[in-house]
Amino acid sequence: MTLWTQSVIEIPAQARGFHLITEFIEDRVEGIERCEAGLLHLFIQHTSASLVINENADSDVRGDLQRHFDVLAPRNAPYYRHVLEGDDDMPAHIKSVLIGTDLTIPIRHGELALGIWQGIYLAEHRDHAGPRSIVATLQGTERI
Amino acid sequence: MTLWTQSVIEIPAQARGFHLITEFIEDRVEGIERCEAGLLHLFIQHTSASLVINENADSDVRGDLQRHFDVLAPRNAPYYRHVLEGDDDMPAHIKSVLIGTDLTIPIRHGELALGIWQGIYLAEHRDHAGPRSIVATLQGTERI
Amino acid sequence: MTLWTQSVIEIPAQARGFHLITEFIEDRVEGIERCEAGLLHLFIQHTSASLVINENADSDVRGDLQRHFDVLAPRNAPYYRHVLEGDDDMPAHIKSVLIGTDLTIPIRHGELALGIWQGIYLAEHRDHAGPRSIVATLQGTERI
Repeated sequence: MTLWTQSVIEIPAQARGFHLITEFIEDRVEGIERCEAGLLHLFIQHTSASLVINENADSDVRGDLQRHFDVLAPRNAPYYRHVLEGDDDMPAHIKSVLIGTDLTIPIRHGELALGIWQGIYLAEHRDHAGPRSIVATLQGTERI
Repeated sequence: MTLWTQSVIEIPAQARGFHLITEFIEDRVEGIERCEAGLLHLFIQHTSASLVINENADSDVRGDLQRHFDVLAPRNAPYYRHVLEGDDDMPAHIKSVLIGTDLTIPIRHGELALGIWQGIYLAEHRDHAGPRSIVATLQGTERI
Repeated sequence: MTLWTQSVIEIPAQARGFHLITEFIEDRVEGIERCEAGLLHLFIQHTSASLVINENADSDVRGDLQRHFDVLAPRNAPYYRHVLEGDDDMPAHIKSVLIGTDLTIPIRHGELALGIWQGIYLAEHRDHAGPRSIVATLQGTERI
């Protein structure tokens, strides 16, 4: 029998930038420790924020990512037509397309099988965002 | 018992750019409405077109994305060596790597659990493409 | 009954760049040929290397990708603060965020359902990397 759990996790409003949410997710997803071999799928229900895996140690990595993505997806490009929602909105949609909306992480022996330097990031692309909703779906074989 | 369905969906040829295909996909994937908690995986079998989630409302977002990705992956960069298939081909491969080939969307209570502003995009990166094939794989718990 | 297999695959150290690993993966993942309809999930446990799908034929595509990603994520940007691990390290983290850490590929009739031109790439972003670990998780219906 495959074990399935699914829940909606709300992340409180964050400042623009990259934020580590590994423990927040681990605490709220039901069933990780009951799963021998499986997958955790995380899906953010928004078009101006992303989920991604990256370095969990030096916070300068997260700052550098923010500064570089601001170069890759600048404000006020002369060809933007979608400008009514603020000069941070179209860059936010571009970053969402570049970085992505969903993430699947393996589960192994009752734990997320992240590498030693890996953490789960919420990337908030708006200047003044509200809370963000993530649908977490777990499936796998049950530990005996 | 986990419910599984799998099918190959053909998308008719599209112009270069970002196209909303949410309803097209929902109409053709078998089993969404029979699924209580599950996942729909979409995989495009091509290297110059992508699948991605973004804003489903203002079509200017899709135009701005196209214009900006043409900046991020320009034609005729002086270091391109793969040029025999046309000046749109190498940019198309780069966009495919940046945006991605597959997408997993949660299913909840018989519906795709998309956020209110989210739609599924086919991003066509070639100037004169043919139809595109998507492998759609659904799995989940059955509704009672 | 859903078939599940999971294993950790070690890829020997590669030079910086994009490498085709389709056959390497197919040879090492257990159960593909026993699976009628399913999914193979690949997850690289590192923050400076990526997994992605792209063209399997002309090696110039892989060279062009490398040259272009070096433009998109340059060394020594003036705003980088994470510089102690070498001038290839922060570009490697950026490429990892742009290209991604995990990949899901459909399985159909006992084979990976890749398009005719698609291959699985390991993208190594560091100048002098060691071996890389990939967690491979397969699930699907069994062939009769």
